[in-house]
Amino acid sequence: MKKNGRVTLPSEENFLAETKELMERWGADAIRDSDGTKLDNEIKQLDAKIYTTYFVARGHNEFAEQHMEECQQLYLMSLFNTALDSTLEIDFMKGYFAEQLQPDYLHDPKKYWEVIDRTTGEVVNVSDWDVNARTNRVVITNAIPWHEYTVSFLVFAIWDPTQMYNHITNNWGDKPHDIPFDVRGPHSNQYMASYLKQWLQDNPDTDVVRFTTFFYHFTLVFNNLGKEKFVDWFGYGASISVAAMDAFEKEKGYRLRPEDIVDQGYYNTAFRVPTKTYLEYMDFVQKFVAEEAKKLVDIVHESGKEAMMFLGDNWIGTEPYGKYFEQIGLDAVVGSVGGGATLRMIADIPHVSYTEGRFLPYFFPDTFYEGNNPVIEANENWLTARRAILRNPVDRIGYGGYLSLAYKFPDFVSYIEQVTDEFRDIYDTIKGVKPYCGLKVAILNAWGGLRTWQTHMVAHALWYKQIYSYLGVLESLSGASVDVTFISFDDVLHNGVPEDVDVIINAGDVGTAFSGGEYWKNPRLLTALRAWIYNGGGFIGIGEPTACQHEGHYFQLASALGIDKELGYSLSTDKYFTTPVVEHFISADSTTFDFGEGMKNIYALSEETEIIEYSNGEVHLASHPFGSGRTVYIAGLPYSEENTRLLMRALYYAAHKEEEFHKWHASNIYCEVHAYPSIGKAALVNNSMREQTTLVYDGNGNSKEVTLAPSEIRWEDVSYEG
Amino acid sequence: MKKNGRVTLPSEENFLAETKELMERWGADAIRDSDGTKLDNEIKQLDAKIYTTYFVARGHNEFAEQHMEECQQLYLMSLFNTALDSTLEIDFMKGYFAEQLQPDYLHDPKKYWEVIDRTTGEVVNVSDWDVNARTNRVVITNAIPWHEYTVSFLVFAIWDPTQMYNHITNNWGDKPHDIPFDVRGPHSNQYMASYLKQWLQDNPDTDVVRFTTFFYHFTLVFNNLGKEKFVDWFGYGASISVAAMDAFEKEKGYRLRPEDIVDQGYYNTAFRVPTKTYLEYMDFVQKFVAEEAKKLVDIVHESGKEAMMFLGDNWIGTEPYGKYFEQIGLDAVVGSVGGGATLRMIADIPHVSYTEGRFLPYFFPDTFYEGNNPVIEANENWLTARRAILRNPVDRIGYGGYLSLAYKFPDFVSYIEQVTDEFRDIYDTIKGVKPYCGLKVAILNAWGGLRTWQTHMVAHALWYKQIYSYLGVLESLSGASVDVTFISFDDVLHNGVPEDVDVIINAGDVGTAFSGGEYWKNPRLLTALRAWIYNGGGFIGIGEPTACQHEGHYFQLASALGIDKELGYSLSTDKYFTTPVVEHFISADSTTFDFGEGMKNIYALSEETEIIEYSNGEVHLASHPFGSGRTVYIAGLPYSEENTRLLMRALYYAAHKEEEFHKWHASNIYCEVHAYPSIGKAALVNNSMREQTTLVYDGNGNSKEVTLAPSEIRWEDVSYEG
Repeated sequence: MKKNGRVTLPSEENFLAETKELMERWGADAIRDSDGTKLDNEIKQLDAKIYTTYFVARGHNEFAEQHMEECQQLYLMSLFNTALDSTLEIDFMKGYFAEQLQPDYLHDPKKYWEVIDRTTGEVVNVSDWDVNARTNRVVITNAIPWHEYTVSFLVFAIWDPTQMYNHITNNWGDKPHDIPFDVRGPHSNQYMASYLKQWLQDNPDTDVVRFTTFFYHFTLVFNNLGKEKFVDWFGYGASISVAAMDAFEKEKGYRLRPEDIVDQGYYNTAFRVPTKTYLEYMDFVQKFVAEEAKKLVDIVHESGKEAMMFLGDNWIGTEPYGKYFEQIGLDAVVGSVGGGATLRMIADIPHVSYTEGRFLPYFFPDTFYEGNNPVIEANENWLTARRAILRNPVDRIGYGGYLSLAYKFPDFVSYIEQVTDEFRDIYDTIKGVKPYCGLKVAILNAWGGLRTWQTHMVAHALWYKQIYSYLGVLESLSGASVDVTFISFDDVLHNGVPEDVDVIINAGDVGTAFSGGEYWKNPRLLTALRAWIYNGGGFIGIGEPTACQHEGHYFQLASALGIDKELGYSLSTDKYFTTPVVEHFISADSTTFDFGEGMKNIYALSEETEIIEYSNGEVHLASHPFGSGRTVYIAGLPYSEENTRLLMRALYYAAHKEEEFHKWHASNIYCEVHAYPSIGKAALVNNSMREQTTLVYDGNGNSKEVTLAPSEIRWEDVSYEG
Repeated sequence: MKKNGRVTLPSEENFLAETKELMERWGADAIRDSDGTKLDNEIKQLDAKIYTTYFVARGHNEFAEQHMEECQQLYLMSLFNTALDSTLEIDFMKGYFAEQLQPDYLHDPKKYWEVIDRTTGEVVNVSDWDVNARTNRVVITNAIPWHEYTVSFLVFAIWDPTQMYNHITNNWGDKPHDIPFDVRGPHSNQYMASYLKQWLQDNPDTDVVRFTTFFYHFTLVFNNLGKEKFVDWFGYGASISVAAMDAFEKEKGYRLRPEDIVDQGYYNTAFRVPTKTYLEYMDFVQKFVAEEAKKLVDIVHESGKEAMMFLGDNWIGTEPYGKYFEQIGLDAVVGSVGGGATLRMIADIPHVSYTEGRFLPYFFPDTFYEGNNPVIEANENWLTARRAILRNPVDRIGYGGYLSLAYKFPDFVSYIEQVTDEFRDIYDTIKGVKPYCGLKVAILNAWGGLRTWQTHMVAHALWYKQIYSYLGVLESLSGASVDVTFISFDDVLHNGVPEDVDVIINAGDVGTAFSGGEYWKNPRLLTALRAWIYNGGGFIGIGEPTACQHEGHYFQLASALGIDKELGYSLSTDKYFTTPVVEHFISADSTTFDFGEGMKNIYALSEETEIIEYSNGEVHLASHPFGSGRTVYIAGLPYSEENTRLLMRALYYAAHKEEEFHKWHASNIYCEVHAYPSIGKAALVNNSMREQTTLVYDGNGNSKEVTLAPSEIRWEDVSYEG
């Protein structure tokens, strides 16, 4: 008998019969509108929950235009300008999009702006510069010739970036520009509540208010050509304002400098080791966002509806893994699923009744066009997500876009019917059941738990050359039989390494928040980690772990890692340890290696270093004992089945638990075993789109050969005598 | 009629007739012994100058053994040792070769040694550690658990490293170990002079005393297995001693710390940005070496002989490009020629009457064995050296090893006959004649003139993965029609950029002395260079030029270079400038590119950046205007004919002198034109071992087609209306 539920459909006008058909086939129990679609009244009367998109801080230009002083703001930095003599005129808006950004002359630039000599880092005295508001120029007098200067200036952000993107991309012509307003302003704050109350009355059929989302968009700034100039999915840029500066001073007892936000033009991206001040600013914003969002959620609840947040566009300050999130009192979070890591980012969010993943592909013409087979993308998306679902499922799945477009692809409709059935089957079997985890792994960086499943990201799930070799770590772990936790250097400094952690991973490029930068000069941090490893802990370094040139090491845990990086300083020291071991536990399933961008000039320090891969005059994979503990170095780990296996073996080796590696294990790297001992079940999965034969090991290490169809998931009853 | 002269032959015992024959065929006018060979009396009576190898500070064990307190010394650093609790015992000799190195217990370790907490960088109080001289252990009490500690300790270097190497390599068994003594010691100082006087009397046939060499060997330390552990051809390690420490304090007014020498275990290699203290120490040693060497040279001159120095093993402190070298009063310097750059390193030495290059191959069995053709190596060596000779010739060439071995290869004997004739022909034509130079190029780094033709070297001409991409710069320039000068950051800070320089090159990895490290935070340096470039100067950056993360730039001349390196901090900023120009002056002769190790994550900052090569998501070759000046970025430049051409074009482009590029020019990259307008001559050379056809341009840019035989040099009479 066919089950239903846990699935959300997008729908649209004049699509009732087909919507009903698809609801039935896919077992959907909720229907949503989208940005650009509306639901018919008949659809709203179907036996399904109705999600309705709600914008708090944009889409109300009739209000916003009357209160431009409460328009959202940004701090921007000008280009670098070289002084040719003692007078320097800076066109500070050069390169910025005037339709999005307007200099703030309401507030005194001499108080809120900063001119900085970037050759020395010194702030230029306000008496040495003036602003020409007509031409948008700053003129510096008494400049030092050949020094470079920048202007940090406040702007009003007069166009919501998401609407701007859609507007420009889709040629919406003279459609009005949504003006984002700041609910920190008194009028805006009052408006957001009163409008919501009215809206709830006007939308009786809505069951779930889908906040798309709250108050501040992630930082997204366009250039003078109307194209993306700066994008940071984690950026707090749009949360700043004169009001925020003043409130911060009142709350924290000191004033922010523009430079605290502008950060030399890097704008405190997640790759920057966060300063104390920036962390305090983030905390300040989170506290405010939680308080204000709670008010809206309370209003929604009073109306008998549910409040759901979209983890996207305007999510800044909500921080689902932050300390204020619980207070908001949301019922649900929905977010886009690009793979296992993004699925876990949603599924692991605490303090909500349910989570929902919006799966790919979007029902948009870029995928749904004649001659293309959208099943392939859907299948890939499902296979990467399914691994993660088997560790911790989202409570619902859904799709987005034009349902009428998907309807034209019958194979796709059939495939999603199968996926939704499979999802419900998995969910009903394992929801709330602790899966078997062979190890507990901690990802160590400057962000810790706040960036759970969010490390090394720039613009959500987009590919960047500089990150893919690290993202494989999260993607691999998202569906692996291990517990994963995210800890910060400050956590270790204050509380030590959590007792139940088997292996710590530190992965990233030198100087980034993910590697740790100057944290690695902290003797207390080094002491804590050396003691922990020496006493049996496992440590895996990827890329430039613990990197910070200091006192004869580049990697500050070089002695534990048994490797270091040659910067040229130690070329005079002979490097004799270049011979790989003949075979090794970690590489036992490897046929080739793919370290992605890799890492150059890594060399072994000791004959105790077990070199596993050496090529091009460099070590890319090695292990080293340190007391009772073990370390592993990996030059890079882009996501693949091979690298997932490599990482799993590295984890077990580092943890000295090789003998447990074959519990609930599949020999074939394209297959995995997810076991749930407490309910006597195990799922054997084929993560590939080809048939696979594999040995499958139970919890006692006994194996049998199994052949799995492409993408198959096979449930088995098992007993566990572990 | 056959000329002769300017050639030095090695000879040996019982080889008189063949020596005479080869003298005649090769036109040799000097004969030398080698380490391991002696000359017969009959040979000494031939019509040739006799060079005799002379050791100042080794090979006199009967003296040295009586004055072990004057044995040479070294400061060494132990391995890094992790404290497990508050007591830590360090086996500081671990990894060192006891036959070479003996801890110095004559002088109080508490005064001369240092124990350092490498986790904090703090020096451990001497009351918190003790030495056990019997076991060679330091025991630290009150250690901080999990901190790392090192011991910096003084040793006596009881075995001369060159003799040690030969001894071990050739299994010399119980042949005594040459003990190096320090002429800073009173007995040694007296001995070196008196022995030389006696020796001069005992060797009346010697015309040239070939000092092999003076007082201090470059740093060469062996490990516990009797293999090379540390080698730095520029290292002053062996010049340190208690006597030197004390004399330094007296002269400079402050005391050296062991750490000033040990330098975190990097031992101040040439890749380290030199500290002020280390520069003062080098100056102190140079001054001493010059004073003492002068005494010996004076003694030689008093005997009517010449004094020649071998620029090799024990050259430390003589610094031919240093400020004290002239005072020594040497007649000649001889050194090994590995290619063009090493030839120029010898040929350009000032303040001597003549220079001599020892060419390859050595007459040793590793090349001269049955079935091998030593002509190939000789031809390659000659072609790379000839380019440099045509810019500035050494005054003599010579060979080393066993003449009897070379004699067995008649083709080789014939080939060298041809080379020696060609050399004399070049020399007689151009010696003292200024060749046409289209440009003046300055190599800018922390060392400047002191390391003329010596940048990016570790162990003389040996290949290292980390240096070959930079060595191409020197090798290309060594035979190019440009003037080359070497300037330091301090030169620029004190005197600005020399007026006649057209193009500055800064090449190296971040943080090294060759790139510049923290120098790039100096506003005065930046100011001087920005002004100079802006006003028309050319600047070429290779690898990580001007690199030092500071105030929003990684390359501190990023605005001039039009590129920067992505460290992760600015991933959020869109990089739109990725499209290479269709064609460019710099790459006009390039078919493929070879940047060697290259450089990752370089991106263009501006639409004005002329991207010439872009691949793998990175810029590897680009140019950018800055005011009236131009800059060029190159990711790496290993030596090749293609890269020589690329560099030459980059130089002319940076200098805004493209229209002069075709003066005295060959279109074929394997050919070059060396012009000598003042004598109305030009040499057309084929640098390859294959026939080449090329357009040859005269000084007015008029061309004609010429075909040159393999390796040919063709002299032409030219007129120049430049």
